[in-house]
Amino acid sequence: MILEKINSSKDLKQLDIRECEILSQEIRELIITKVSKCGGHLGSNLGVVELTIALHYVFDTPNDKIVYDVSHQSMAHKMLTGRKDAFLESEKYKLVSGYTNTDESEYDLFKIGHTSTAISLACGLTKARDILGGTENVIAVIGDGSLSGGEAFEGLDYAGSDIAGNMIIVVNDNQNSIAENHGGLYQNLQILRDSDGKAECNYFKALGYEYRFVKNGNHVGELIEVFSNLKGIGHPVVVHVCTVKGKGYWYAEENAEITHFVKPFHISTGKEKNPFSGERYDRILRDFLAKKIKADKKVAVIMPAVANILAFSPELREELGNQFIDVAIAEEHGIAMAAGMAKAGMKPVFATKASFFQRTYDQISQEVCINNMPVTMIVINASVYAATDLTHIGIFDIAMMSNIPNLVYLAPTNRQEYLAMVDWSIEQNAYPVAIRAPRNGVFDAEEAVDRDYGNLNQYKVVRQGEGTAIIALGDFFQLGEELAEKIEQSCGYKPTLINPRYITGIDEELLSSLLSDHDLVVTLEDGILNGGFGEKITRFYGTTNMKVMNYGLKKEFLDRYNVEQIMKENHLDADIIINDIAMVSGGK
Amino acid sequence: MILEKINSSKDLKQLDIRECEILSQEIRELIITKVSKCGGHLGSNLGVVELTIALHYVFDTPNDKIVYDVSHQSMAHKMLTGRKDAFLESEKYKLVSGYTNTDESEYDLFKIGHTSTAISLACGLTKARDILGGTENVIAVIGDGSLSGGEAFEGLDYAGSDIAGNMIIVVNDNQNSIAENHGGLYQNLQILRDSDGKAECNYFKALGYEYRFVKNGNHVGELIEVFSNLKGIGHPVVVHVCTVKGKGYWYAEENAEITHFVKPFHISTGKEKNPFSGERYDRILRDFLAKKIKADKKVAVIMPAVANILAFSPELREELGNQFIDVAIAEEHGIAMAAGMAKAGMKPVFATKASFFQRTYDQISQEVCINNMPVTMIVINASVYAATDLTHIGIFDIAMMSNIPNLVYLAPTNRQEYLAMVDWSIEQNAYPVAIRAPRNGVFDAEEAVDRDYGNLNQYKVVRQGEGTAIIALGDFFQLGEELAEKIEQSCGYKPTLINPRYITGIDEELLSSLLSDHDLVVTLEDGILNGGFGEKITRFYGTTNMKVMNYGLKKEFLDRYNVEQIMKENHLDADIIINDIAMVSGGK
Repeated sequence: MILEKINSSKDLKQLDIRECEILSQEIRELIITKVSKCGGHLGSNLGVVELTIALHYVFDTPNDKIVYDVSHQSMAHKMLTGRKDAFLESEKYKLVSGYTNTDESEYDLFKIGHTSTAISLACGLTKARDILGGTENVIAVIGDGSLSGGEAFEGLDYAGSDIAGNMIIVVNDNQNSIAENHGGLYQNLQILRDSDGKAECNYFKALGYEYRFVKNGNHVGELIEVFSNLKGIGHPVVVHVCTVKGKGYWYAEENAEITHFVKPFHISTGKEKNPFSGERYDRILRDFLAKKIKADKKVAVIMPAVANILAFSPELREELGNQFIDVAIAEEHGIAMAAGMAKAGMKPVFATKASFFQRTYDQISQEVCINNMPVTMIVINASVYAATDLTHIGIFDIAMMSNIPNLVYLAPTNRQEYLAMVDWSIEQNAYPVAIRAPRNGVFDAEEAVDRDYGNLNQYKVVRQGEGTAIIALGDFFQLGEELAEKIEQSCGYKPTLINPRYITGIDEELLSSLLSDHDLVVTLEDGILNGGFGEKITRFYGTTNMKVMNYGLKKEFLDRYNVEQIMKENHLDADIIINDIAMVSGGK
Repeated sequence: MILEKINSSKDLKQLDIRECEILSQEIRELIITKVSKCGGHLGSNLGVVELTIALHYVFDTPNDKIVYDVSHQSMAHKMLTGRKDAFLESEKYKLVSGYTNTDESEYDLFKIGHTSTAISLACGLTKARDILGGTENVIAVIGDGSLSGGEAFEGLDYAGSDIAGNMIIVVNDNQNSIAENHGGLYQNLQILRDSDGKAECNYFKALGYEYRFVKNGNHVGELIEVFSNLKGIGHPVVVHVCTVKGKGYWYAEENAEITHFVKPFHISTGKEKNPFSGERYDRILRDFLAKKIKADKKVAVIMPAVANILAFSPELREELGNQFIDVAIAEEHGIAMAAGMAKAGMKPVFATKASFFQRTYDQISQEVCINNMPVTMIVINASVYAATDLTHIGIFDIAMMSNIPNLVYLAPTNRQEYLAMVDWSIEQNAYPVAIRAPRNGVFDAEEAVDRDYGNLNQYKVVRQGEGTAIIALGDFFQLGEELAEKIEQSCGYKPTLINPRYITGIDEELLSSLLSDHDLVVTLEDGILNGGFGEKITRFYGTTNMKVMNYGLKKEFLDRYNVEQIMKENHLDADIIINDIAMVSGGK
């Protein structure tokens, strides 16, 4: 096996082209094997095998610097830079992350997982080199899908005029943005592909770049030749490389969207090994929204390239016509457009992952909330139970969004409440509303849920008790139920259990009323405590005799964590909390 | 006077071209007169007088819809749409805001003040029209400077392929982004201007647009002709209109950067009427940073188009060479590039207004904080004492930024502490640091300030007392001093006064020690309470007997507020607080 001899880009330089081709086959098979067992990003990694070999072959990494956009295509890079064992030996699979990771290797420059960042980061490396007097090559590898993101444009535009020295921007054109591409620039990429890069009207040239076209981006020899000619070039250049997403694995080539990110699958069929057969909130919401759309021309769903996270299939999207809107990777635009649609009388629903909402703080604040536009925002994966990768964790949204004025941020605790909140939000006209999609398993309401949430900040007392009041928000409501039951069993009194529902405000009347027969309030929230929900409750009681204990997550970046362990570490466990209460109550 | 007869776009249609030209002169003089007395955006408003007349002349507003980007060029629009009195009569000057304002007129579609939003908002109006079956024209007016912002690109890219119907994007090319333009696209605009729009390589065509060029964008007849031909067009079109920023007022034409936004000035000379002669933190920081840059190749200042807010003149920028970096209106890129520069060993300082930091939440979180890059961020105008316009208020930054893990957010209380913190941040290598530029007047330290802030979250006890501890953050430290003095005078005991310095963490040891001889903690912060600094203190004391009172601002969007009044409303007044304390202490 050739790969076994490769520990650095230096080793790679000893190979001839034929050996590089064999190596690419070896790498490809290892990707397919590992991802079929562990899951992960499949199509993006398969598409760039030859590109990655060619870059390390030509350039003197790690002195020459490669920045991968999103870095969900860095498996070949990892195999070539000292981490092949994590692909060759299944017991070492977990030793490397699915993204570039500075803890793993000096070849990895940043911990990255969001799109559209590579050009700006590379600009920083380049700018520093030119000011401090270095000579290394700086290469940014960015997919066509990431180019629609505003940050990528800002970097591309800036470097097109204000970077004087070497900078090689590799546009990996695999004709996908998770789902299909949307945006005028993709028409231009098509024109460039059709003309072998010769069309006069060229997006990259318009931004000031020298431009190279590589028709067969899965041909390692062709790539090596092109990069060899660019090594050491004294100004920015865009290399437009056409690759095939999923290259070399028939199922991935034929199903680019669903094999963008996969769970463990059978290589022979491409089918998922353990398809989830139970109920899931993504499908529940999808079905609800599809029905709303079909019944009402005014309802539209806007998603930025992530239709998959709500299981909107290409067929269903087609069926929903112009009321399902994929804006590609362009979250800022998506939120702003939703504000415009609301202004014009529509009922827009914008949905993406919590981690990607981070790109839209200003649009939520300015376009939506200052203008009080009745946009519905569905915040997905906002939970300790959701994505565990460093760059995708969903425990910061409450701190980020819930302190924006005018916004009504709701936390449903079960299926019926979730859909009732979404329905209310879509049909009302008074507030910008965000809804935190539950992520802790599908629960059904034990009694009828409210249909109208317009009476803001009215918490719901689920069980009236005394002594201790548990205010259990959203995903942690079930933990609150468990805590209430255990207190009743072990402490000899029945505590009050409250479903607050509203993240963005406090029910002053209810909180005041608790003062008469409660001496402790416990808040539970599925997010960081800093800037979160519980602190507002504590502030309310600041000058009273009420004791308040806030439970939630510590303010920290977690990575590939074990949920159970993190919950315990943060005392998010009924028994631990009861123990804490006993310690606080002391001699009571 | 022709303007006196104009109350709507209908009235305008009765004029002939000659009368339109006279009208544009009338409007221009009123802009100059009003701005010379009140201050405001001068250049942008003067540049678009003819453009605004032509749009309302040709289109049937408000049925046809015009969205102005930033909307700091909407004075002519306001004069033509029923609000001329606010320009004709000086006692009515304050009746209209400096931006479009939906409370003022149905002709104003959004409350806007940030750049780069118009195309996406117009997309929303267009999308809704096409889904619901309307026929109106939708026009977005956006300056060339705003085009470098990622959100503008996202909208432009999206509409270039995914808006099927009428949409007219007017690019008002005045060759400025507050300061000079930066970015490859501006080279393309230059090429287009030089070729009268005929160059084949065309940024807008590359994004899929039909394109029109208007050489003399200050010629009302030419504009009317072009727009008349586009009225009712069935697909998106970009109209590239060349205008002169500051047109018609010699001083503004010759000094585009400094007359972008002005204080009251003498029309005859262009000079400010009451130039500030005292000390200001902008100049203090500028001088400090310039000195750092000159002494150390590794130090660089990055500002997105707002060099003016730190008074970096064109001459000084020139002198600082490649270590002063204007990235144009591209905040996301600016932060990400700073992360890249830090990675490569530089000491980058990124500075802009608090309100514009809102565009960079994800970049601060992902590129900077996850990667723990030692970037220094100077957060300007983060204060109730700073900008009072709805879209620019600076009281949300603590809630937004301070809950991001790894970030060290510092709040200096005087000149020496401010510069010591900036210096420490630039020279250290361990943390991403943000510093809240003071805004409540320049104060000097009474004793030596610390040079090293690496011992995180160590608060400083300024006066040791008993009973009540006042934790007074940043700009409100002086209020804390006043409160401490008044308590001592009127309540007969000496309270403890603490300068916390660190917004992002709490000094657990100090807070614990207060429990022995204090029964009340008062926190003061110059920002909203929700998600802010004080709530963290309160949470710390949640299960103790300590009473805590948090003072700061209510979570709300304020607009053109009176600082003194808002301070009083929020009880940010030593006498009111003493009264509150008395009420809480009750029978004590």
